[in-house]
Amino acid sequence: MSIFSITIPKFRRRKMAMPAPGSVPGTLPAPSGQAAPVITRFVYNLVDCRSQDVDPADLEKAFAPEPGKVVWVDVQGMDDGEIVRRIGNKLGLHPLTQEDIVYIHQRPKLEEFDDNLFVILRAVRLLDNQSIDNEQLSIILKANLLVTFQEHPGDGFDPVRRRLTEGKGPMRKSGADYLCYALIDTIIDNYYPVLDLYEDTMDLLDDQVRENPRPATSASVHNMRRELRQLRRAVWPLREVAASLSRSELDLITDPIRVAFRDCHDHALQLADFVEANRERASDLADLYLAMVGEKTNQVMKVLTIIATIFIPLTFLCGLYGMNFDTEASPYNMPELKWRFGYLFFWITSLLVFAGMLWFFRHKGWIGSSSGRRKKSDTNTG
Amino acid sequence: MSIFSITIPKFRRRKMAMPAPGSVPGTLPAPSGQAAPVITRFVYNLVDCRSQDVDPADLEKAFAPEPGKVVWVDVQGMDDGEIVRRIGNKLGLHPLTQEDIVYIHQRPKLEEFDDNLFVILRAVRLLDNQSIDNEQLSIILKANLLVTFQEHPGDGFDPVRRRLTEGKGPMRKSGADYLCYALIDTIIDNYYPVLDLYEDTMDLLDDQVRENPRPATSASVHNMRRELRQLRRAVWPLREVAASLSRSELDLITDPIRVAFRDCHDHALQLADFVEANRERASDLADLYLAMVGEKTNQVMKVLTIIATIFIPLTFLCGLYGMNFDTEASPYNMPELKWRFGYLFFWITSLLVFAGMLWFFRHKGWIGSSSGRRKKSDTNTG
Amino acid sequence: MSIFSITIPKFRRRKMAMPAPGSVPGTLPAPSGQAAPVITRFVYNLVDCRSQDVDPADLEKAFAPEPGKVVWVDVQGMDDGEIVRRIGNKLGLHPLTQEDIVYIHQRPKLEEFDDNLFVILRAVRLLDNQSIDNEQLSIILKANLLVTFQEHPGDGFDPVRRRLTEGKGPMRKSGADYLCYALIDTIIDNYYPVLDLYEDTMDLLDDQVRENPRPATSASVHNMRRELRQLRRAVWPLREVAASLSRSELDLITDPIRVAFRDCHDHALQLADFVEANRERASDLADLYLAMVGEKTNQVMKVLTIIATIFIPLTFLCGLYGMNFDTEASPYNMPELKWRFGYLFFWITSLLVFAGMLWFFRHKGWIGSSSGRRKKSDTNTG
Amino acid sequence: MSIFSITIPKFRRRKMAMPAPGSVPGTLPAPSGQAAPVITRFVYNLVDCRSQDVDPADLEKAFAPEPGKVVWVDVQGMDDGEIVRRIGNKLGLHPLTQEDIVYIHQRPKLEEFDDNLFVILRAVRLLDNQSIDNEQLSIILKANLLVTFQEHPGDGFDPVRRRLTEGKGPMRKSGADYLCYALIDTIIDNYYPVLDLYEDTMDLLDDQVRENPRPATSASVHNMRRELRQLRRAVWPLREVAASLSRSELDLITDPIRVAFRDCHDHALQLADFVEANRERASDLADLYLAMVGEKTNQVMKVLTIIATIFIPLTFLCGLYGMNFDTEASPYNMPELKWRFGYLFFWITSLLVFAGMLWFFRHKGWIGSSSGRRKKSDTNTG
Amino acid sequence: MSIFSITIPKFRRRKMAMPAPGSVPGTLPAPSGQAAPVITRFVYNLVDCRSQDVDPADLEKAFAPEPGKVVWVDVQGMDDGEIVRRIGNKLGLHPLTQEDIVYIHQRPKLEEFDDNLFVILRAVRLLDNQSIDNEQLSIILKANLLVTFQEHPGDGFDPVRRRLTEGKGPMRKSGADYLCYALIDTIIDNYYPVLDLYEDTMDLLDDQVRENPRPATSASVHNMRRELRQLRRAVWPLREVAASLSRSELDLITDPIRVAFRDCHDHALQLADFVEANRERASDLADLYLAMVGEKTNQVMKVLTIIATIFIPLTFLCGLYGMNFDTEASPYNMPELKWRFGYLFFWITSLLVFAGMLWFFRHKGWIGSSSGRRKKSDTNTG
Repeated sequence: MSIFSITIPKFRRRKMAMPAPGSVPGTLPAPSGQAAPVITRFVYNLVDCRSQDVDPADLEKAFAPEPGKVVWVDVQGMDDGEIVRRIGNKLGLHPLTQEDIVYIHQRPKLEEFDDNLFVILRAVRLLDNQSIDNEQLSIILKANLLVTFQEHPGDGFDPVRRRLTEGKGPMRKSGADYLCYALIDTIIDNYYPVLDLYEDTMDLLDDQVRENPRPATSASVHNMRRELRQLRRAVWPLREVAASLSRSELDLITDPIRVAFRDCHDHALQLADFVEANRERASDLADLYLAMVGEKTNQVMKVLTIIATIFIPLTFLCGLYGMNFDTEASPYNMPELKWRFGYLFFWITSLLVFAGMLWFFRHKGWIGSSSGRRKKSDTNTG
Repeated sequence: MSIFSITIPKFRRRKMAMPAPGSVPGTLPAPSGQAAPVITRFVYNLVDCRSQDVDPADLEKAFAPEPGKVVWVDVQGMDDGEIVRRIGNKLGLHPLTQEDIVYIHQRPKLEEFDDNLFVILRAVRLLDNQSIDNEQLSIILKANLLVTFQEHPGDGFDPVRRRLTEGKGPMRKSGADYLCYALIDTIIDNYYPVLDLYEDTMDLLDDQVRENPRPATSASVHNMRRELRQLRRAVWPLREVAASLSRSELDLITDPIRVAFRDCHDHALQLADFVEANRERASDLADLYLAMVGEKTNQVMKVLTIIATIFIPLTFLCGLYGMNFDTEASPYNMPELKWRFGYLFFWITSLLVFAGMLWFFRHKGWIGSSSGRRKKSDTNTG
Repeated sequence: MSIFSITIPKFRRRKMAMPAPGSVPGTLPAPSGQAAPVITRFVYNLVDCRSQDVDPADLEKAFAPEPGKVVWVDVQGMDDGEIVRRIGNKLGLHPLTQEDIVYIHQRPKLEEFDDNLFVILRAVRLLDNQSIDNEQLSIILKANLLVTFQEHPGDGFDPVRRRLTEGKGPMRKSGADYLCYALIDTIIDNYYPVLDLYEDTMDLLDDQVRENPRPATSASVHNMRRELRQLRRAVWPLREVAASLSRSELDLITDPIRVAFRDCHDHALQLADFVEANRERASDLADLYLAMVGEKTNQVMKVLTIIATIFIPLTFLCGLYGMNFDTEASPYNMPELKWRFGYLFFWITSLLVFAGMLWFFRHKGWIGSSSGRRKKSDTNTG
Repeated sequence: MSIFSITIPKFRRRKMAMPAPGSVPGTLPAPSGQAAPVITRFVYNLVDCRSQDVDPADLEKAFAPEPGKVVWVDVQGMDDGEIVRRIGNKLGLHPLTQEDIVYIHQRPKLEEFDDNLFVILRAVRLLDNQSIDNEQLSIILKANLLVTFQEHPGDGFDPVRRRLTEGKGPMRKSGADYLCYALIDTIIDNYYPVLDLYEDTMDLLDDQVRENPRPATSASVHNMRRELRQLRRAVWPLREVAASLSRSELDLITDPIRVAFRDCHDHALQLADFVEANRERASDLADLYLAMVGEKTNQVMKVLTIIATIFIPLTFLCGLYGMNFDTEASPYNMPELKWRFGYLFFWITSLLVFAGMLWFFRHKGWIGSSSGRRKKSDTNTG
Repeated sequence: MSIFSITIPKFRRRKMAMPAPGSVPGTLPAPSGQAAPVITRFVYNLVDCRSQDVDPADLEKAFAPEPGKVVWVDVQGMDDGEIVRRIGNKLGLHPLTQEDIVYIHQRPKLEEFDDNLFVILRAVRLLDNQSIDNEQLSIILKANLLVTFQEHPGDGFDPVRRRLTEGKGPMRKSGADYLCYALIDTIIDNYYPVLDLYEDTMDLLDDQVRENPRPATSASVHNMRRELRQLRRAVWPLREVAASLSRSELDLITDPIRVAFRDCHDHALQLADFVEANRERASDLADLYLAMVGEKTNQVMKVLTIIATIFIPLTFLCGLYGMNFDTEASPYNMPELKWRFGYLFFWITSLLVFAGMLWFFRHKGWIGSSSGRRKKSDTNTG
């Protein structure tokens, strides 16, 4: 990453898709003909954990309850509204809930229904190539059943799946609510590396603004503010969702999980603090940039002023003795030109003017302070 | 849309009409003599749906209840206060409610009365010619009766009417509350294309500020902020209205519709987030514009400084040897003029000064970095 | 109103009078010896309405209840604390209430006592000469009695008085609470023309900032912000007062009037929205002014740079061939001066330099775009 | 007060003294050996009022209750922690309350204990020499006993003492709670002259920024903001204290006094509004200063540009005909020099260039508008 | 501390350590192999106080309750997650609590469990070398047991330990809740010297901005804002923690301690006020810097303008009479050159131009006011 160009990592953004205004609420889009969604089903209890791919044709069977076991159905790839409709009908989801799952630019939220809990979150995570993935995750929690919908295949939940299959931690001993908590906790944890990356980028920008403020720097700060605004729109409602979960009075969430969600809420609060602090920092940086550019203009002006101000009187002197008044026509016409030491007299006058100017500028503090003394202070404040 | 002029889509604004201060509250204006309002009446139930135009003379009959059916009376064109008065009296509306319907610059609000619900909204939508329509919609919801008042003919409800006549969706099976919900949902959906248009315009402005910041750009950003301020005044109270509807305890709104209004509330929240994000973005753009213009001034200054600073000493040298000290009068007067290589000596001195200046400017970082290196970084941060 | 000077309408402000710190709370000032207050008494019921001037000497009699009738005593001109004291004692007002009535810079507020309601408002209205009147109105509401105190004679209540005497509207049928509502409603209505005037002035300022930003413009924007700050201090507490009135549980206010105050509250909310929007607009205007002035400086600089940069090298060339190196003393001394086409050579060189400079400036985008192309965009964004 | 230097009145600030971190909470400092505190005791009821100085040695006796009388002990000068400890022990004050009394940089607050009420306030008042006194006042209210602690001798309570000794107002008829109210009311009243002084100073600054913006002005605005920040830290918590007092449910405060504190709360609210309005005004002034300085730079630039731009081409012309091309060597070399009207031709060319430049500047609006027309607008907007 | 470089004291910051996203909640890191933690155990009651180092191998024994005594176990150095796990299991701490203790970038918070209270705070204090120590302190309060976890050895609690061993104050008489209060009170007290240092540094910056605004100053202000942002993230939640403690309904905290926590809350409020005031001050300073730099540019421009504007016409005059029009060829060609007083005429013209220019600048107020008069005002506003 060169000092001359700091790339601000961007969220992947898709054009927002919306149902046509005035259409029946709950209308789902026709199948887009794209790749079919990848559907996986986990069934587990303390002693056993099976995972299988689900054929979209036999979709409904995947939701059959298994006594004493927890079922997790994970749907990756939301292009086909038909899948959502079939699942929604099977589970008795409200048509508007189905719509929210398909149209993937929802604000994170939590909705409590009589027999299920519906959570929408924004899963933001740093990919290995340092780009940022940003997708919507919808979670349906019912008794012993968890259904998740993701925008596209690929997510940050592999560690959770490994904990399931390897039986690490209390997950296999717990119900669907623990799984729900584990997923949300993972999503929150995934925000931290993104924020760290932003903080690192901000450090780079900070250095650049101090050392070499350039229009590209200003544009980068501007981009950073835009990304932080985006991030904030994902993080702030997350806080409310976590708080609601920790205070939920539904039976679907057991007491220990409610306590665990309190911890999620603390982390979401910390994320929000973080985003706000970075937003303020970006705003300060923009101010600092302006101050630095103003200072640069000032310095440029100072050099122009000094050079011009020193030479303008000297040039006047030259012009003076370049005049052609006829020394023959009158003894009062420029007698200096004929003096024995006229030229020397000119040089002495010029040097006096030059020295007087230098003294004036040093007195004003415009020269002499700009190189030596400043270097020192720069290192101290670095 | 040329890069040199970005037109900010404007709301249609009318001068605010108000009753004269001190007049009897509830006074309605006299008929303006303009075109009569267009009044339509829909009567429907599960099996049947009739739509008919209503003659203003027989206005009162339109509100006759029809057993087992829902009646929707839609009044388009509010210039005639008399119509509102007659309807208001027929339905037993409060005089102040009648006043709110006629004076069309109300803040969106919800009022609950004993036997009716009164909603005022701002219906903003994008017309086909990319201009924005902005009118007030007043809704009266009574048992099995919905009355709507619009500022002028033409609205975004044709899809709703089509759903009514074609019997699509659950509308024909439901009561007047569902119709009310369908209209409000449509209004909210109609905001999205407007916001998308603003976002696109903002992207154009963003590019322009970075590449070619000009006074017209600044004025466009200023206009954008004004429009967003207007939009915000329509959207923010919408949030409260939707929240109140989803929490209303009136019998007029059934439970499933209350849940549906919760979804409206989510969308209104998202709209408000959107407007705020765009407002912040416009504010950032204004800052960026200032930074960019400052940078441009800086660049202009740099060129002036460099040219002037290089030539001022050279011009001094020229002036020096243009002086007319009499070389005959004294051997000390400008002997250089008579040297064999005097002219060459002048050129060599001049070139040394020139080269020294160039080195100084490059050392200060004022030249050499402005074309090559910057190009590169611009493409990276684009 | 010339484009070169936009007068910001000002509130009339008096120096704030306060009781001396530490004096007995409730102390009223001695009579100022100025004109005596104008006191009017209205007595009305459904069938009758009498209005009479009250002699300050017989002040107490004016408050005698008349069975089945409403009494309104209106005191205009607050200079004489003695009048307030006598009325206060007659009605049993708290000494601090009396103090609030006399010292006319109170914050709008509502106080509920056991047997009366005390409201302080700021009555702002546009006079016919486009200046703004700003006085304090204190209202005491008791059973069948309303007392109002105004700073000085002259108010906006003539339409209300006319409604009383002519019996228009439900006022004569209702109690003192309706009269109280009618006065407050009139005060709120009177704010709208003031805000409209400010909005019109803001439009003028907006145009001026875009077309001809001048220091006087900046000062006008600054004045506008000061007036809006004043207005806000009057409008914001108005909101709270209206809300409290609509929620009051005192018997003095009947249910229908409570509903009517809800409407007042909506209008006060709208006023507050309005003031805030104008404040933001004024703040944006100040930013735009800075951007425009920066741009103007930029343009001035550009012209200086272009002229100077073109002529500085040419002047150098002139100076060069104005040197007096002795062409006789050496063949190497300025042989150009003796060339047959030396002068022509000079002009060709000069023109090449000139053309090169022009090309450079056009390439940088500093000339050629400033007149033709901009005109076009200005009209589009206007 | 000269227009060139506006002194911002400052609060007296002492270095904040704090107990060493980790010391026992409630530790009081050792006697500082400075002047002993001045302790005065008032004992009064309806018929009698005695005031006496208290010898620190007999301190405890001063708190002996007198049946049917109110005792007020006023301690002025807090340097000696021992006095506070002895009084605290005598009255049974919490050690932390004692600490709060001695360490004089507390935030204004109210604490309710079982048998006493503890109030800390900041008493800010304008002294006769226009400087501002700022000390902490601690009040302990018990049944028939009021104890006050002040930082140093000298306060604004002389009118209250006079009311006590002269028996003016209801003070002698009332309990200790009325005295407490009278003191707090006096403190609040004393803020107004300070705010008036600030407002006057702000008017001066306003004028100066418009007419003669100078760095000293900017520094004064900056100082003003600092003082207002200080003032706000004193005023905002005052609001809360007054609100708590008016809602207090302790028996120590009787109902009429509770109503009186409601009035205090209104005044504290008004003070807070005032401070905020002045803060906004100072912030606007800082913006206006920037705009005015920008405009000044602009004007200076314009003069430079006009002078330079007019003379640069003329100087080029002079240089042109100052060249020494040898008119003898070739007829093409500067034949103008030998023309009969060559000099006249030069002057005509020069005048044409001069006139063209003037026309261009007038066309751009850079000259001609700066003196006459502006004067006029300045008077209008003043 | 030289005036040319103001070092902003920094918090020690460590890279934030987080458990890997998706790992089992409550996972603790493996031992890092660094220095073992220093564990100390205090056991005390009114008559006795023993302190002993705890061997990590016998960790569990340290928590054995001692009848009638309070046990305080202090763990300094958090690198080894194993220690926390063992203590957590011994005390029955929630796994997430254990995680919060180890991962040391938590937001200050309070969590109430059935049988313990868990507090996380940020302990910020000024070290003797004027650097700032910033570590996380976790406190577990159980009946008669207090456990504290610190990031690294060394803290500000030595005065508390001394009070324990020397039996000063009520600590030995009280329970574990008093110890908890004493620690939190010490932490809060330790913030004050840090804030004082910041305030002093701000004073230095303030002076520098007024007297010698330089880029390093701007960078220091920027650094100051960053540190204050950090500090605010530590102080704001502290407020909430203290408020919760003073309102806690757990039996673990006795009534007198609850009152003492109310005092902590007041101090935390004051800290927050302080931090906010300093943040505003830093923001004002940044504005003042911009104004001062703008003024400096203005002054530089003025000098350039004055010098250039005076000499440009003079140089034109010189150039004029340096032209070579052939006076022989025509009597109209520059007859001035042959006048008897031609040279004198030139000088008189030049001096008139010079004087006219000076008058013009003085009239514009650009010279004459910059040295004498300003000095005076500077001292007044200092």
